[in-house]
Amino acid sequence: MIMVKKKPLILITNDDGITSKGISELIKMARQFGDVVVVAPDGPRSAQSNALTVDAPLYFEKLPDDNTGSELYKCSGTPTDCVKLALNQVFDRKPDLLLAGINHGSNAAVSVIYSGTMGAVFEGCINRIPAIGLSICDHRQDADFSMAIPYFSAIVRKFMEHPLEGICLNVNAPIGEIKGVKVCRQTKGYWAKEFEPQISPNGNKYFWLTGYFVNLEPNDSQTDEWALANGFISVVPTHVDMTAYNVLNDLTTQGYEEI
Amino acid sequence: MIMVKKKPLILITNDDGITSKGISELIKMARQFGDVVVVAPDGPRSAQSNALTVDAPLYFEKLPDDNTGSELYKCSGTPTDCVKLALNQVFDRKPDLLLAGINHGSNAAVSVIYSGTMGAVFEGCINRIPAIGLSICDHRQDADFSMAIPYFSAIVRKFMEHPLEGICLNVNAPIGEIKGVKVCRQTKGYWAKEFEPQISPNGNKYFWLTGYFVNLEPNDSQTDEWALANGFISVVPTHVDMTAYNVLNDLTTQGYEEI
Repeated sequence: MIMVKKKPLILITNDDGITSKGISELIKMARQFGDVVVVAPDGPRSAQSNALTVDAPLYFEKLPDDNTGSELYKCSGTPTDCVKLALNQVFDRKPDLLLAGINHGSNAAVSVIYSGTMGAVFEGCINRIPAIGLSICDHRQDADFSMAIPYFSAIVRKFMEHPLEGICLNVNAPIGEIKGVKVCRQTKGYWAKEFEPQISPNGNKYFWLTGYFVNLEPNDSQTDEWALANGFISVVPTHVDMTAYNVLNDLTTQGYEEI
Repeated sequence: MIMVKKKPLILITNDDGITSKGISELIKMARQFGDVVVVAPDGPRSAQSNALTVDAPLYFEKLPDDNTGSELYKCSGTPTDCVKLALNQVFDRKPDLLLAGINHGSNAAVSVIYSGTMGAVFEGCINRIPAIGLSICDHRQDADFSMAIPYFSAIVRKFMEHPLEGICLNVNAPIGEIKGVKVCRQTKGYWAKEFEPQISPNGNKYFWLTGYFVNLEPNDSQTDEWALANGFISVVPTHVDMTAYNVLNDLTTQGYEEI
């Protein structure tokens, strides 16, 4: 009997929307690894984290064939909604891989918490699908992905060879020439001076989110921000268990269970 | 010289909106611990995770005195936006404590990833403010908080006595009689059968998010779902570092840095 091995089934999504340059580059790149199905937001959904649409109905729609051989769907929801809809309504089997991005802008350090791209990756991870978020440190719509893509491609290949249960990857590429790849941990830091007040024509004060990232450990070469600042692609293994295991015993000792 | 110790300054927010019963109960409870300032969404923002408003302006507005002695602000954004606005635009010093809730509905297990309440707590944690999310396993608008509140109060007091750097708490209370408090880890699991399709009057198919939680370790007494199912309040210490430290060496061994 001849065993015909099915090609890997790959779900692609993002948070910049289905018409962004980054997702189009990712679709092209991913096709070498298997059959690609895209379920992505119908417009920008940056910084949507793992937000879900719970108070409104969700729509999704198959788009005409784009001559690439991939199936494309646009969805009215968040990146996490896209993954949930794909798994529940589009696929008849679990995809072998989820790729999110390529995001226009860094998702390193604490941005992993806010990122819609990484939200989609975490949703894959929760559903036990190997998942990778790919981002470059360039917000521009016409960002140049050409230097990052050979590295991203090699990282995806390696993760498909060595998937790790319950682990997803947060991968970020610097702007410009790339020196190599570094396995890192998430940098400690926060955003400061985050709002710009403005006055509307009718006299109301409102605020735009802005600000800059404060790196609390800029000289630590184990962090993802250090890797990016020094020309390396950062690969951070991430998971969805938020438990701080190192203090479980402290809390017990402090007497919480005697309350 | 007599030192006058300032009363602790407490920021309160939630994701059910400023008019919910849960936040009103929390404000009453918190007043015993210090001066309370509330900056909360102007309507429901459940399941908003750490979503940020980046593509629209944000508004916030001081509400008339409610005769409780607390300052109240309503905000057009997400729970995370509320915390950012509070820290940047409302307070002239860093609050000593952030409390979020009391949420109408459980934020145990993987719900911690989707929860707007816990999003606000993580935002406090990123900004190095001791932060606690308080939830009860009852979605009803008129949920009865009376059995949980004495326990929540004792947990808040203990955390103020023993704050842990970079750690926040995810606290959930079961419905009904409470046997005590358990220090737990986050349960492994996922949501299944998540969509209910419907047809609009004009013939379009749309979907409502629904489904049920699948607990992958229902008999493990170290998990928060076990605690809740057995009548205990669950206290899970959480943090915002998503790095999976246990596989950093595996990735290096697998040759990512040789790519």
